[in-house]
Amino acid sequence: MPSRWVADLLSDTLTQPTQAMRLAMAEAPVGDDVFGEDPTVAELESRVAELLGHEAGLFTPTGSMANQLGMRLHVEAGQEVIADSLAHVLRAELGAAAVLSGISSRSWASERGRLEPDAPLGLMSVGAGPYQVSTALIVLENTHNFGGGTIQSLEAIREVRAASQTAGVAMHLDGARLWNAHVATGIPLADYGREFDTVSVCLSKGLGAPVGSVLVGSREHMERARIWRKRFGGGMRQVGILAAAGLHALDHHIERLADDHARAARFASAVGAVAPSVVSPELVETNIVMLDVSETRWAPAELVDAAGARGIRAYAAGPRAVRLVWHLDVDDAATDAATEVFTDLLA
Amino acid sequence: MPSRWVADLLSDTLTQPTQAMRLAMAEAPVGDDVFGEDPTVAELESRVAELLGHEAGLFTPTGSMANQLGMRLHVEAGQEVIADSLAHVLRAELGAAAVLSGISSRSWASERGRLEPDAPLGLMSVGAGPYQVSTALIVLENTHNFGGGTIQSLEAIREVRAASQTAGVAMHLDGARLWNAHVATGIPLADYGREFDTVSVCLSKGLGAPVGSVLVGSREHMERARIWRKRFGGGMRQVGILAAAGLHALDHHIERLADDHARAARFASAVGAVAPSVVSPELVETNIVMLDVSETRWAPAELVDAAGARGIRAYAAGPRAVRLVWHLDVDDAATDAATEVFTDLLA
Amino acid sequence: MPSRWVADLLSDTLTQPTQAMRLAMAEAPVGDDVFGEDPTVAELESRVAELLGHEAGLFTPTGSMANQLGMRLHVEAGQEVIADSLAHVLRAELGAAAVLSGISSRSWASERGRLEPDAPLGLMSVGAGPYQVSTALIVLENTHNFGGGTIQSLEAIREVRAASQTAGVAMHLDGARLWNAHVATGIPLADYGREFDTVSVCLSKGLGAPVGSVLVGSREHMERARIWRKRFGGGMRQVGILAAAGLHALDHHIERLADDHARAARFASAVGAVAPSVVSPELVETNIVMLDVSETRWAPAELVDAAGARGIRAYAAGPRAVRLVWHLDVDDAATDAATEVFTDLLA
Amino acid sequence: MPSRWVADLLSDTLTQPTQAMRLAMAEAPVGDDVFGEDPTVAELESRVAELLGHEAGLFTPTGSMANQLGMRLHVEAGQEVIADSLAHVLRAELGAAAVLSGISSRSWASERGRLEPDAPLGLMSVGAGPYQVSTALIVLENTHNFGGGTIQSLEAIREVRAASQTAGVAMHLDGARLWNAHVATGIPLADYGREFDTVSVCLSKGLGAPVGSVLVGSREHMERARIWRKRFGGGMRQVGILAAAGLHALDHHIERLADDHARAARFASAVGAVAPSVVSPELVETNIVMLDVSETRWAPAELVDAAGARGIRAYAAGPRAVRLVWHLDVDDAATDAATEVFTDLLA
Repeated sequence: MPSRWVADLLSDTLTQPTQAMRLAMAEAPVGDDVFGEDPTVAELESRVAELLGHEAGLFTPTGSMANQLGMRLHVEAGQEVIADSLAHVLRAELGAAAVLSGISSRSWASERGRLEPDAPLGLMSVGAGPYQVSTALIVLENTHNFGGGTIQSLEAIREVRAASQTAGVAMHLDGARLWNAHVATGIPLADYGREFDTVSVCLSKGLGAPVGSVLVGSREHMERARIWRKRFGGGMRQVGILAAAGLHALDHHIERLADDHARAARFASAVGAVAPSVVSPELVETNIVMLDVSETRWAPAELVDAAGARGIRAYAAGPRAVRLVWHLDVDDAATDAATEVFTDLLA
Repeated sequence: MPSRWVADLLSDTLTQPTQAMRLAMAEAPVGDDVFGEDPTVAELESRVAELLGHEAGLFTPTGSMANQLGMRLHVEAGQEVIADSLAHVLRAELGAAAVLSGISSRSWASERGRLEPDAPLGLMSVGAGPYQVSTALIVLENTHNFGGGTIQSLEAIREVRAASQTAGVAMHLDGARLWNAHVATGIPLADYGREFDTVSVCLSKGLGAPVGSVLVGSREHMERARIWRKRFGGGMRQVGILAAAGLHALDHHIERLADDHARAARFASAVGAVAPSVVSPELVETNIVMLDVSETRWAPAELVDAAGARGIRAYAAGPRAVRLVWHLDVDDAATDAATEVFTDLLA
Repeated sequence: MPSRWVADLLSDTLTQPTQAMRLAMAEAPVGDDVFGEDPTVAELESRVAELLGHEAGLFTPTGSMANQLGMRLHVEAGQEVIADSLAHVLRAELGAAAVLSGISSRSWASERGRLEPDAPLGLMSVGAGPYQVSTALIVLENTHNFGGGTIQSLEAIREVRAASQTAGVAMHLDGARLWNAHVATGIPLADYGREFDTVSVCLSKGLGAPVGSVLVGSREHMERARIWRKRFGGGMRQVGILAAAGLHALDHHIERLADDHARAARFASAVGAVAPSVVSPELVETNIVMLDVSETRWAPAELVDAAGARGIRAYAAGPRAVRLVWHLDVDDAATDAATEVFTDLLA
Repeated sequence: MPSRWVADLLSDTLTQPTQAMRLAMAEAPVGDDVFGEDPTVAELESRVAELLGHEAGLFTPTGSMANQLGMRLHVEAGQEVIADSLAHVLRAELGAAAVLSGISSRSWASERGRLEPDAPLGLMSVGAGPYQVSTALIVLENTHNFGGGTIQSLEAIREVRAASQTAGVAMHLDGARLWNAHVATGIPLADYGREFDTVSVCLSKGLGAPVGSVLVGSREHMERARIWRKRFGGGMRQVGILAAAGLHALDHHIERLADDHARAARFASAVGAVAPSVVSPELVETNIVMLDVSETRWAPAELVDAAGARGIRAYAAGPRAVRLVWHLDVDDAATDAATEVFTDLLA
């Protein structure tokens, strides 16, 4: 469906399946995946697992369910997960970890979502005994959505991994946009993936598939996750239709993320040139641009409305920020249009 | 993917999408349904709602999630749902109502899942005060899966509805196979639907869509269910791909369920003729045949294995029964083959 | 506090501590039981464990918490417990098992709560695989409160135990009034107790202590239960004050339950003589009398009001029954008064 | 029971009931509080409510249950509570809010638990819409236990109250040791209490009662809390026995908390004089002393052991601190002994 927007930068979840992807879906061999009989799902799961350096994978209807399954595997009811206070698992999954799994949580503060190892390591509660909550899991997010597409440093991740592993605390990566980190840094996906007990990746954001995420981990973990996926209501049937889109995306849509990054950077440079307080180009690491409007005459919602009136859709992200996200359906022309509108409004 | 079975009667969840259905999916206009922007999903939701006599609908990845959302809408944590002890919501959703929603449950016994109004009405706990659990919801199932495809009488449903409504107890219908009841009886779907506060129907069983169910109810209920669907991890993106299969199924695959019923009846007559203790043809009301092997030399699993060795897949359902389910991918020839094998084994 | 009732038969939870019991409490050595340092609690726990043939015990503020801990020990979130549809754990604990522990449940019907082994054994779901709920626990109740003080047969219990143990299903006894079964039958408490993985007994019903129950089981189970007791908010401090009342009750208030039984029987005989449809004396097995008013001119609430106006307090138990419970504070004179009022009203 | 310690500074939960308190318990009029018939409980509840400027109160077996009920009243499953990362409700209640109520949580960092209004106000997520978690409650703690007995400023509380109330976010006070803040500052309890929707206070810490806490709030909130108390397993019977100790403590043990504060200060001065890096006397605001051993030769557990060997019991609180708590059973002589041991060990 053609968008009514000149540039729709609301989210990279908006991507439409391409014609080639639609064809791949139409031709996919399928089976009943509840009984483990869908060959396309099986292919996708094992391929993503291999890419990320893990034994096995599990297809899920959403990234939220992949994260919730990952957390459930490592944390018993009454134990806690710790994460950045801006983390998607704490902010944007509607409190699901507490509801679905009785998981308690505490959070650390960050600058734009960037991981500083002392933060999680200082917050961990280990050897807590029978009176205090035990930290069972650290969740990191890479790239960091509400932080503005921030890439986590592999060295920082490894420092947290070493210390938490010693303490018996597991690690899960919310890698919804790990593809972007990989493309921006050139670091192999598996180099990130191997530092975690489980990783979720999303096929329906930058990669452009219509639906679906994959959780990866050990074979035993994935077997348990499969049962919990059914309990959570995510045990779908001939879902190879969707998995086929994911396989197509792995083949064709990873490297092109570099285009999104370049366009986002170009936009940020132009806007930063006219409004330096609003965005620093060096803070735009991947496909997300956060505009800080606190020193302008705009409230976030008003700026979003004004841009919307000129055909550019953006997202009011909290009391001082507007977020724009580049993706498969935002080309150079759309980028130019968005640049023109925002430089105009913010100059 | 062509099945390796001569006749695969394991479940009607196995159906493969037809070529026409695949084409409908490939051409479907889609949008981001989390933002309410998928036109194909919207069309499917409103069409199913209308068919069932309700205001609004909500697409879900599975029938389990549709049922769990329906229960969540009517029952607060610490209240109870009551249902037949063979009900899918209590037997085959892995205890999800307790896990996801803190819903307690009690059950009544039935003959083949058939509703006798006194059973739920005698079990209901109303006006329970601050010390006893309150019954907030009755769940019925039509047709009844583990009961053997049993059709519920509209009169019985209405008797329960009248008494429970007076008592302030809501009703949810697990209508995964309501299509079969409608086709077998000629009773309009909405005549069933209107007796309930919410109804779930499944697109991926008899109707042959690869994935998906729809929950229907009031507009306000569906708005709350939409939020809880996201919390449960079921908020998918360009899911019009799947909804298109559902729309195609509504157009093309409802009336043909009569063929499944006729084939199941034909099989049952033939087997009942050689093994009267095993199946009575008059108990086969729709597309499911339950074979009672308790008076034969077979244990269920052994009979399933013996049939499997001859290319016929069936399901061992508990300590005395074997279940066979007719569907889109079981034609007359497959039915004849299955009939030959089972009359042979049970004669 | 002297009651304003001539006979208060509302419940045996009403019992007032005697002077001797108050003295025992006032003199009890105590410590901080959260740190395991209360000697009186420790003595009570080990004494009750020994009485019931188990390794260890745990003091809890209520019988509900003891039952909820017992269930939590044996059932994982998403598994199920099965019990009689009138069981206290399903009817009168406000759905706590689902809320606190994500425990699903189904129930069997009974005649006055009496255990027929086929009922639980036919309902059990074992070897359920990854798609169906697994029964992890059977809960029995002895004597059965809402059944009318019904005593369970040790043979029936043993039959259920043998079959469920083979199937890997645990058993918990809600023994709030096991004391009454023991006194009525002469069967040692441990003979009952040994048939179960965990047993809860109540000190504040027939035994007359003001507050408290004890859960017994294996040492390992009690260690886990201790942590969950804290999580549920039941980790009290110098609670030896209350445990002292329990120890006093064990010494002085068990055998006297026979008086309650005799008084209840005497009342039932007199009322049954004038109103045979209302109560059969042979159904009064312990300290509870259920009056069935369905063939009289009384609704339960009206009969309760009429008796109340004459100084006798009773309890309207559902749409056709009035319950009366004998206990420590109902003597012969109170029994005579209640008899006079009810024979009068029901003649 | 006489302690085996020269000075037992492990916690103020250790206090033994005095003889006068034991007598008050022994003589207390009681009734069945589940039916609302215990006069001593009723008196305690209304008296604490009045002291704190609220309509009604509810007795609970523990402070944890009082806090959990308070949170449950204000937060729906899937919403969140925010609190200091050292808060008792997040650290020391074993993740109960997530388990019992499906409550999600995030936390802010603090210096010694001291409230800086920007911290909660910057973390609050309000107007979050259907995709993000909504903050429903802020929990503050006064005095702050793991912060070292820190008193919260009334001005800071009021600043948070004003802003959160505008945003529709409720506030609960964990006032387990609010008595200490009141005695140390002279600020009336109700001046603190009125800034919150609900407040929990503990009778069994500094006040010296053996068991029990009280939650206060509006009459409607307490009615709902009463039902949830039963569901949590906290609905005790003749609990006036314990409430009598609470009433006695209110009459006799509040003002004497000043002695505990003076002794703690005296100890801190002496230790600070010989080991300035370990404790600053001006940081000891009430009855808790935190020793920071990070610049000494001691690990916390080793210092605790060394002091224990000389008859002084303390608590290793995390990787760098040792906590000592003054209370009813620590007199001047015990304080002198503790001072001698710790100055010795730390000099």
